[in-house]
Amino acid sequence: MKLKIKQNILMEHLNYVIKGVSNKNLIPILNCIKFELTNEGLYLTSTDNDIAIKTFIDKKDIESIDVTGEIVISGRYIFDIIRKLPNTIINIEEVVDSRLYIYTEKSSFYLNCNLVSDFPSIDLSDHKSPIILDQKVLKMIYNQTSFASSTQETRPILTGINFKITEDKMECTATDSYRLAKKEILLNTKVEEDINVTIPTKNLGELVKMFINDEDKVYLHIFNNKIIFKFNNIIMLSSLINGTYPDTSKLIPNQFKIMIQTNLNDIYNAIDRASLLTNETEKNTIRFESYKDEVIISSNIPEIGNVEEKISIKKQDEHDIKISFSSKYMMDALKTLESEEVHLLFNSEITPIIIKGSSNDQLTQLILPIKTY
Amino acid sequence: MKLKIKQNILMEHLNYVIKGVSNKNLIPILNCIKFELTNEGLYLTSTDNDIAIKTFIDKKDIESIDVTGEIVISGRYIFDIIRKLPNTIINIEEVVDSRLYIYTEKSSFYLNCNLVSDFPSIDLSDHKSPIILDQKVLKMIYNQTSFASSTQETRPILTGINFKITEDKMECTATDSYRLAKKEILLNTKVEEDINVTIPTKNLGELVKMFINDEDKVYLHIFNNKIIFKFNNIIMLSSLINGTYPDTSKLIPNQFKIMIQTNLNDIYNAIDRASLLTNETEKNTIRFESYKDEVIISSNIPEIGNVEEKISIKKQDEHDIKISFSSKYMMDALKTLESEEVHLLFNSEITPIIIKGSSNDQLTQLILPIKTY
Repeated sequence: MKLKIKQNILMEHLNYVIKGVSNKNLIPILNCIKFELTNEGLYLTSTDNDIAIKTFIDKKDIESIDVTGEIVISGRYIFDIIRKLPNTIINIEEVVDSRLYIYTEKSSFYLNCNLVSDFPSIDLSDHKSPIILDQKVLKMIYNQTSFASSTQETRPILTGINFKITEDKMECTATDSYRLAKKEILLNTKVEEDINVTIPTKNLGELVKMFINDEDKVYLHIFNNKIIFKFNNIIMLSSLINGTYPDTSKLIPNQFKIMIQTNLNDIYNAIDRASLLTNETEKNTIRFESYKDEVIISSNIPEIGNVEEKISIKKQDEHDIKISFSSKYMMDALKTLESEEVHLLFNSEITPIIIKGSSNDQLTQLILPIKTY
Repeated sequence: MKLKIKQNILMEHLNYVIKGVSNKNLIPILNCIKFELTNEGLYLTSTDNDIAIKTFIDKKDIESIDVTGEIVISGRYIFDIIRKLPNTIINIEEVVDSRLYIYTEKSSFYLNCNLVSDFPSIDLSDHKSPIILDQKVLKMIYNQTSFASSTQETRPILTGINFKITEDKMECTATDSYRLAKKEILLNTKVEEDINVTIPTKNLGELVKMFINDEDKVYLHIFNNKIIFKFNNIIMLSSLINGTYPDTSKLIPNQFKIMIQTNLNDIYNAIDRASLLTNETEKNTIRFESYKDEVIISSNIPEIGNVEEKISIKKQDEHDIKISFSSKYMMDALKTLESEEVHLLFNSEITPIIIKGSSNDQLTQLILPIKTY
């Protein structure tokens, strides 16, 4: 393998594949990046056995392709070396004793290569009928639901975001069993068979960080045990989480006894202040009490003090609600709304609280109340 | 105590005194801020027994002073409450049962007060003849020397910056015994008695973070066991470190056998790259070898690879040097220089390396070489 390439071009692509390099030192080959130089261009691949990332640099972006070939090299070292070299043309060449020689006029590095045959072989071939989304749509799904997924490994299925597709309806759900976020998307085309897969939340997070252009498309190729995302010149594979995602469809009521409408910033800031006098050990519980045209939010830590916040509301009928919930969970939910007004929907002080924006954004946030008596 | 004050004005001053609030929970009163409202204005004081900070808000910046008085209140809670309130006029009032009532139109907080008599009494009275510096000068001293002081508590005296003043000459020195940074300053006036004190580096760091205007003055009132800094409307007291600072005057040679001049950015970047192939456990040792008009910097980790960097130099005579040192220590030293060119001065491969900028900035950096044979 022998080529010349501009520093900034190689760096752009190393920035993608480095996310697939394992941070653990257990299996050295998973700390590596594979370089495959063909006459068409340079492929870079990394995998930590949970995700795999492959990018492609077209020959037109490479200064010269002198000898094609493959090498496997420590990902962290090649990344740092290229990052710290000046933005000039870099020579990369495999030399005797399977060493990689990386040099510019003033700098020369020799790195020991790993065996190409030790690098895992990863099947990144396409599915016949991918689901096509705008990158901004998948990013929005992630931003509006990911926080509600669990970080505890006790129920692995809850550490992912569930994608359930029937015909042209896609429902994306995350829950840690104390709260739930659900986003509905209407697809451009219908799927032939129903799909129900759960993608690890952290892998989706790595994916959306790689998106560069909101208007570009991302292609989702869904298999039984993996999902392959294709976008720009990048392929990312993620494992899927085994198991059946809980059926959450009956959790969200259709009818509500109490419907409160208020300004999103006002309620967010009031809860933020009230949360100052809550205990994390008690789930940052705050009290929420509705009256004719206002809500009083209160909390206290007996040894420190107490707080009372008032917000103006509109309410649809005479019913009032007195309920307690986690200020943190409520703020997490409110943060995902993009409207000026928020609707809070209740049936009783022991049933789920539903939070929706005023616009028809197909987003539902749910949090469970906390019993305080 | 009863007053009305704008949120942004109180917040500006809480931002200063919060730095004097203890982060440890051992002695609750040290987590507090003392409010003293007089007819002249509001004083805020905090102390963690190592530093103390006192600020003053003049009556002209207070909306109304209704009842003068003193209260002592949890620093972290009052800080967070004021920070999260909107930028409006805040009412603060001591009410029955020694509670502090903080309220705006929509928000009301009650906080339990601590006993004013439990708050440490701190003597912040002046010295007759302070040393006067521009804030930017003290900030520069900190930035150019602090990194060289020790973070290990085994020799407490080395965790400070030593200020030695004779007549109008001030020498500021920091060393962790592997490297040393020394800055010399010419004062505007002569001191009557020699001064030799060591100020905890972290306290100086907190101080310079509070400086707002480079051109403003800071007044140093030096006592036997403490130093008081006065600037703008703020007073900060710092303890001094007990003990005798080592005499470092003979460490820095006057004459050198080898004097090398090179571009600061070039050598910094070359060492930065070479350090990629060093081990932290071996003090990030790199090799430095001079030839006629270039220096070769090299390092290696046998199992990973090796690196060689070339830089162009000017050298004053025929002597060459082959020496090893910590890339980290050299980069820390180079970072403090403000000139385009750097001078590296050597006598042998086992004697200290002196690093100076080309301009006459009264700054000397020293690092010890590492024996590698």
